[in-house]
Amino acid sequence: MRFHDAVSTSSSLASRYRDVRQATSALAAPLGPEDCTVQSMPDVSPTKWHLAHTTWFFETFVLGRAKPARATYDARYGLLFNSYYEALGERTPRGQRGLLSRPTLQEIVAYREAIDEEMDAMLARGVDADVAAVLELGLNHEQQHQELILTDIQHVLAQNPLRPRYTPPPPASTRDTARRDRPPLTWHDEPEGLRSIGHEAGTGPGTGNDLFAFDNETPRHRLFVPAFSIASRLVTCGEYLDFIEDGGYSRPEFWLSDGWAVRTKEGWEGPLYWEKQEDGTHLTFSLHGTLAIDRGAPVAHVSMYEAYAYAAWAGARLPTEAEWEITSERCTIASGHFVGSGLLVPRPLAHRASSEKGPHQMFGDVWEWTGSAYAPYPGFRPLAGALGEYNGKFMCNQMVLRGGSCFSPASHLRRTYRNFFPPGARWQMTGIRLAKDLQT
Amino acid sequence: MRFHDAVSTSSSLASRYRDVRQATSALAAPLGPEDCTVQSMPDVSPTKWHLAHTTWFFETFVLGRAKPARATYDARYGLLFNSYYEALGERTPRGQRGLLSRPTLQEIVAYREAIDEEMDAMLARGVDADVAAVLELGLNHEQQHQELILTDIQHVLAQNPLRPRYTPPPPASTRDTARRDRPPLTWHDEPEGLRSIGHEAGTGPGTGNDLFAFDNETPRHRLFVPAFSIASRLVTCGEYLDFIEDGGYSRPEFWLSDGWAVRTKEGWEGPLYWEKQEDGTHLTFSLHGTLAIDRGAPVAHVSMYEAYAYAAWAGARLPTEAEWEITSERCTIASGHFVGSGLLVPRPLAHRASSEKGPHQMFGDVWEWTGSAYAPYPGFRPLAGALGEYNGKFMCNQMVLRGGSCFSPASHLRRTYRNFFPPGARWQMTGIRLAKDLQT
Amino acid sequence: MRFHDAVSTSSSLASRYRDVRQATSALAAPLGPEDCTVQSMPDVSPTKWHLAHTTWFFETFVLGRAKPARATYDARYGLLFNSYYEALGERTPRGQRGLLSRPTLQEIVAYREAIDEEMDAMLARGVDADVAAVLELGLNHEQQHQELILTDIQHVLAQNPLRPRYTPPPPASTRDTARRDRPPLTWHDEPEGLRSIGHEAGTGPGTGNDLFAFDNETPRHRLFVPAFSIASRLVTCGEYLDFIEDGGYSRPEFWLSDGWAVRTKEGWEGPLYWEKQEDGTHLTFSLHGTLAIDRGAPVAHVSMYEAYAYAAWAGARLPTEAEWEITSERCTIASGHFVGSGLLVPRPLAHRASSEKGPHQMFGDVWEWTGSAYAPYPGFRPLAGALGEYNGKFMCNQMVLRGGSCFSPASHLRRTYRNFFPPGARWQMTGIRLAKDLQT
Amino acid sequence: MRFHDAVSTSSSLASRYRDVRQATSALAAPLGPEDCTVQSMPDVSPTKWHLAHTTWFFETFVLGRAKPARATYDARYGLLFNSYYEALGERTPRGQRGLLSRPTLQEIVAYREAIDEEMDAMLARGVDADVAAVLELGLNHEQQHQELILTDIQHVLAQNPLRPRYTPPPPASTRDTARRDRPPLTWHDEPEGLRSIGHEAGTGPGTGNDLFAFDNETPRHRLFVPAFSIASRLVTCGEYLDFIEDGGYSRPEFWLSDGWAVRTKEGWEGPLYWEKQEDGTHLTFSLHGTLAIDRGAPVAHVSMYEAYAYAAWAGARLPTEAEWEITSERCTIASGHFVGSGLLVPRPLAHRASSEKGPHQMFGDVWEWTGSAYAPYPGFRPLAGALGEYNGKFMCNQMVLRGGSCFSPASHLRRTYRNFFPPGARWQMTGIRLAKDLQT
Repeated sequence: MRFHDAVSTSSSLASRYRDVRQATSALAAPLGPEDCTVQSMPDVSPTKWHLAHTTWFFETFVLGRAKPARATYDARYGLLFNSYYEALGERTPRGQRGLLSRPTLQEIVAYREAIDEEMDAMLARGVDADVAAVLELGLNHEQQHQELILTDIQHVLAQNPLRPRYTPPPPASTRDTARRDRPPLTWHDEPEGLRSIGHEAGTGPGTGNDLFAFDNETPRHRLFVPAFSIASRLVTCGEYLDFIEDGGYSRPEFWLSDGWAVRTKEGWEGPLYWEKQEDGTHLTFSLHGTLAIDRGAPVAHVSMYEAYAYAAWAGARLPTEAEWEITSERCTIASGHFVGSGLLVPRPLAHRASSEKGPHQMFGDVWEWTGSAYAPYPGFRPLAGALGEYNGKFMCNQMVLRGGSCFSPASHLRRTYRNFFPPGARWQMTGIRLAKDLQT
Repeated sequence: MRFHDAVSTSSSLASRYRDVRQATSALAAPLGPEDCTVQSMPDVSPTKWHLAHTTWFFETFVLGRAKPARATYDARYGLLFNSYYEALGERTPRGQRGLLSRPTLQEIVAYREAIDEEMDAMLARGVDADVAAVLELGLNHEQQHQELILTDIQHVLAQNPLRPRYTPPPPASTRDTARRDRPPLTWHDEPEGLRSIGHEAGTGPGTGNDLFAFDNETPRHRLFVPAFSIASRLVTCGEYLDFIEDGGYSRPEFWLSDGWAVRTKEGWEGPLYWEKQEDGTHLTFSLHGTLAIDRGAPVAHVSMYEAYAYAAWAGARLPTEAEWEITSERCTIASGHFVGSGLLVPRPLAHRASSEKGPHQMFGDVWEWTGSAYAPYPGFRPLAGALGEYNGKFMCNQMVLRGGSCFSPASHLRRTYRNFFPPGARWQMTGIRLAKDLQT
Repeated sequence: MRFHDAVSTSSSLASRYRDVRQATSALAAPLGPEDCTVQSMPDVSPTKWHLAHTTWFFETFVLGRAKPARATYDARYGLLFNSYYEALGERTPRGQRGLLSRPTLQEIVAYREAIDEEMDAMLARGVDADVAAVLELGLNHEQQHQELILTDIQHVLAQNPLRPRYTPPPPASTRDTARRDRPPLTWHDEPEGLRSIGHEAGTGPGTGNDLFAFDNETPRHRLFVPAFSIASRLVTCGEYLDFIEDGGYSRPEFWLSDGWAVRTKEGWEGPLYWEKQEDGTHLTFSLHGTLAIDRGAPVAHVSMYEAYAYAAWAGARLPTEAEWEITSERCTIASGHFVGSGLLVPRPLAHRASSEKGPHQMFGDVWEWTGSAYAPYPGFRPLAGALGEYNGKFMCNQMVLRGGSCFSPASHLRRTYRNFFPPGARWQMTGIRLAKDLQT
Repeated sequence: MRFHDAVSTSSSLASRYRDVRQATSALAAPLGPEDCTVQSMPDVSPTKWHLAHTTWFFETFVLGRAKPARATYDARYGLLFNSYYEALGERTPRGQRGLLSRPTLQEIVAYREAIDEEMDAMLARGVDADVAAVLELGLNHEQQHQELILTDIQHVLAQNPLRPRYTPPPPASTRDTARRDRPPLTWHDEPEGLRSIGHEAGTGPGTGNDLFAFDNETPRHRLFVPAFSIASRLVTCGEYLDFIEDGGYSRPEFWLSDGWAVRTKEGWEGPLYWEKQEDGTHLTFSLHGTLAIDRGAPVAHVSMYEAYAYAAWAGARLPTEAEWEITSERCTIASGHFVGSGLLVPRPLAHRASSEKGPHQMFGDVWEWTGSAYAPYPGFRPLAGALGEYNGKFMCNQMVLRGGSCFSPASHLRRTYRNFFPPGARWQMTGIRLAKDLQT
């Protein structure tokens, strides 16, 4: 079994199922039918599509597997809501998801409710380990889409000259007041050595290894890691402004060749959503609407190309994913904060305990670009069947990101998690941590 | 005064205003917020946009002109709902209208109601001739958008694999039963001569010339028209199928060079919305959902390129717009039929009085491609001010269409009407009438 | 017979054949194999291709017709050197002509010589009227390509930062010295009337009508022309600079909608080949290399969109092709000047007799954009067979140009000649003459 | 010093310089000016450009560095012949190199001769170690372009329907006669372990480490390599035909997501240059013209996407670059064969000693795609100055290739060499070796 889950009793699975599904619905609650229909670019999916696709996943891979004779809810939904499983037949091209006015939001909510009812009934009866494993995958899959619902609607709303906000910011008391441009930065050194990263194979119920992981995090494997030094915290907006003001976007010497070409073609002059004002200051568009740049908060919505250029300008480089994972073992997994606080922007560091010494800000602020291309770990085996397409086939032209953002569900974060996006992607909540070789 | 209108009393203008506005709302009634949001290609606008843009037109050009000191409903709406008036400043690019989830449908309905209320009040007090003229233009403009609401939502719904229908077909009793593939066709001959076409200038209240016309229909002018022969009726789907089956889409000798290039690039093998079935028959997608091809009905949704190729294959040519207009004087202006019958597809000819002898089917079935490029009439003067952009600036790379379709408001049709679209456009309700030189 | 030719004795045809072919070779003489190979955009063809294609035309349509049993020079040349005759089978896509390094220039010269030898022998024996007619078409066709060789190599050389020149300018004595920005301009009025334009059908040997014309110039036909006024001379570079300096390229009110879109997309700020210097003056690239703008010379290398905008700015419009042709009857056909003088730029007007009163500069300076879309004349019949594709299939999305440029062979110019290009084309030697309605 | 060279006496450098430059000229000898001008796609450069660019490299980085006061040969050549050094200012966009008919081939040959003369004189006087190091880089750089001259002209000639050949094949006696589809294949196992790859830093004159290497091959570094198994030979055309015939190009389950998208968009059905005949057999286009597929020869001109899909179909995977380099230590570096034999296609294996037991065919047949994304080695430092752009800035979206092809200069091959191309590139001489995890 490839998915590794502590769940052994249906009751806890049932309650987790309800919780995850409910969290998704809560994310769509502030949005109307029009908001849920728009697709602002091929990378983005309409909220409606996220709501339906995650449901289709449970219907196809859990109910369909557990009850092969069962009638499909709507035979045409596969064509509409299959994301990329070639093994499951034809599907609507990704860039055309915004052309589908039907099913309506209301019809999709009804679809969710019908499948939830069927799932609840099945879970009440109990499921075997195989079904439980796929269900656990489905829950983690839905959590991924929870984050995408937020990144995607931010992009949709940003296209609108009215700059509508998704949700008001929480009361000031829960937000940060003490903002420092350049919170204390220390460099954390790690000696060279033969290390292990990745998630243990042979996990799951009965193995004593309870944690879920995607197939791409396995197997845990040894690798030799030279000595390195890594920044204790993320790059701030204030620091990034220094880069901009020092001509960072017009000096090719800092940029990868492909990155420079994209910058030139797209006319980038700052992170996505930043808007330079006539007085030289910047605003940014967030799920709370248009805000002033918070110089002490982590910079976000930069591509790997920009992260790379910033690092080169700063005389450093991006960490490898192995360096990141090793470092993360010295850091507790802070909760993603949006669930608790209602705050949907990365917080300035001062929000945290000022006494923190070692590496921090590793979970729940921004995804951190690494310098590692996304590739299979040695010994990697994809899942069997159509689910084998879940991760493996994307292992080209993508870079690994680590950590997790303020949009990520708290229970979804772990040290071995491998997120991945093309190096030019900017609409995710992505930021920068610096690293350096450690001369030995 | 360039717009020519019988309206001399505010009361009749007021009631026409209410009627036209109400007709627009009725067209949107079968659609939900999701349907009204989608833009399926840059040529198509979301229903929401049509509803708002027509309202913005009255607010800007009528209320704004009549009451210069009045506060704008929402200062940002110009940016969103200006179509192409460069003189009025920046606007959302045409292809991005589908990215705007806000204002919501409900907000736009509220906008319509607010402007209508203000308009009603103004009309109750009476307006001067200048305002009345622009208001008449606004009403005709809104009628144009009524037709576009239908053509555009047909294209939107056609993208959806669920093939949702806009409205059920009317009961069979109101539809045609006797269908003939090839209704009687006669050729109507006109001798050569110095003729006049176009709408009389110097019309309007007090001139005895009551009819409205757009600026591009003026001035009425003389031109020499050689003898010609024109078909008494439109080309049917059955005839067009013969063309397809005779290899019409793979024989370049019938096609214009540009048309052949488009056909090849787009992979055209039949009219837009036709779908060839495995058994060789064709279905078509309509506002009533998917229907069998009606062999006796006029072919529709063909580009000028296809109309030209069909005509060449048939040993004929397309009529010029002068030939069409001259011929139309021998034909009564039948009502566009959708308002009465609820039927939103072109009817087979048998529906009409079989005793018709002269040219017929000239109004209210399909727009008829002419062989005339859209150009100013001799002596043409565009309207003054921003409204001068209404027609004149499109006089290049477009072909004139004449007649009017089953989507056209009945009161909107007249002999001098000049519709225009690029030669490759297919999403309008466009068909074919043949003509020939008459050897003298 | 559709092509109309004075040639009745083979001897004169033979000598014309030699003269035209030799003129083509002379045009290629200043160019090396590299120059003759490059294609700088799809509209442009390599010189090598022009040399071969015109030869292929004679081989296919003259030798192939006269001697059906004859062996083809190289069976593969049809694939390479057919321009657009769909009836003759597959061919290299237009945009890929610059990918063909072989046959080499030397091989193509050998091909020309072989076909010329065969043609000479055939012409020495005499040909029948049908062959003579196609041969005459071939000669006029080759003359068209003589002009294209010049326009195309100008575009090729212009891409090169070295700005190489095709040929040095002639000694100053043959060039103009007295340059006036704004030579005297008068307006020539024509009353309304039923007029005739086009070339007489039923011409050719024995009919007393000796002149050649292309099929698209026929038949001569009547049309009603309203009174109009037309400028006695062309628009000068100095006048066009006024338009630029008055913001002509940033004021949409003067532009056609399509024209404004192209201007914006392409970033046009002046005619093709104009380069604004840091001091605000302009240089232009010509076949004589980089030159200062001659303010008194006709503006050239403008699209119809720019011509239209200029005319609107100047309170005028472009003439129709009928207006142009009627006016041209009052003007002698001046020779295109390049053959005699070696001068390959339009001359300033002062070069001409200053006493000229009526319309002048109508032949041999620049092609003049008209406001007429390219369409068949009433009663037009294309040539039979593959040659029927020569003109007719391009009658869409093109505008008619009249007159002839300083690149045109002198013997090629006539009043009825209809040149045509898409409204956005700028690499031809194209300029502007103004016209106006004449209020009667 | 980063470039590591055995050259300590100017005399040997001088003779190497002459040899390398002469070899380049010899490669261009079979080509005429037209062949040397054409650019068939942006990835390809005209031969003329290669000849000039390599010369510009010596002029700029060697002569310009050694003699700062020296006059540039032609100040405009930097603009034309700079490849991608942003630090050196503006340059002609890559895709427009084929638009430059000037300088002519003859002028570029003169440029080469002038620089060679100057270089010879300088080398006769002796150069210091810094200059020698850059000169060595220049020679290796020119050798890279020697291979590109061949890959690029193959692509240029392949566009021509005449299918011209670059050079006739050598006499049959030097070619292979015994051709086996499936030569013996063994799997070579390597145990897991901490290994070292890369080129030793601190090399060069006086260090006892004489070999040149590019900066991207350094530093030599340790890494942990799990146990693996690697194929003793390359995949043959016969084996690849099995993949094709088994539906390899229509079964997405074997393909990376990006690869499948490219295959679909481009319509790939076999390697580049393969043409399926009506009888089902395949021909291929080579520098010797069109040839039958040699089923026993290594497959070539496949992208990484195809290599990956083939490996997945075969139940294997591509080796990592570390696996390849480790394995190569068990294999002698065979000469690239083209220099000796005149044979410009990969040879079937039977050509080699049949007694070979261990890994073979690792050098001089085809470049082998690895599964490793191109990234900096731990501790990598790019060269100082403009030359730092040589390799480092391409470390994204590219895959590493190892080995060397039959187009590679023999003296250019070594175990640590890292070639790199985007995963979709096919016009290089690229093939496949399989690997597998070794279960321990």
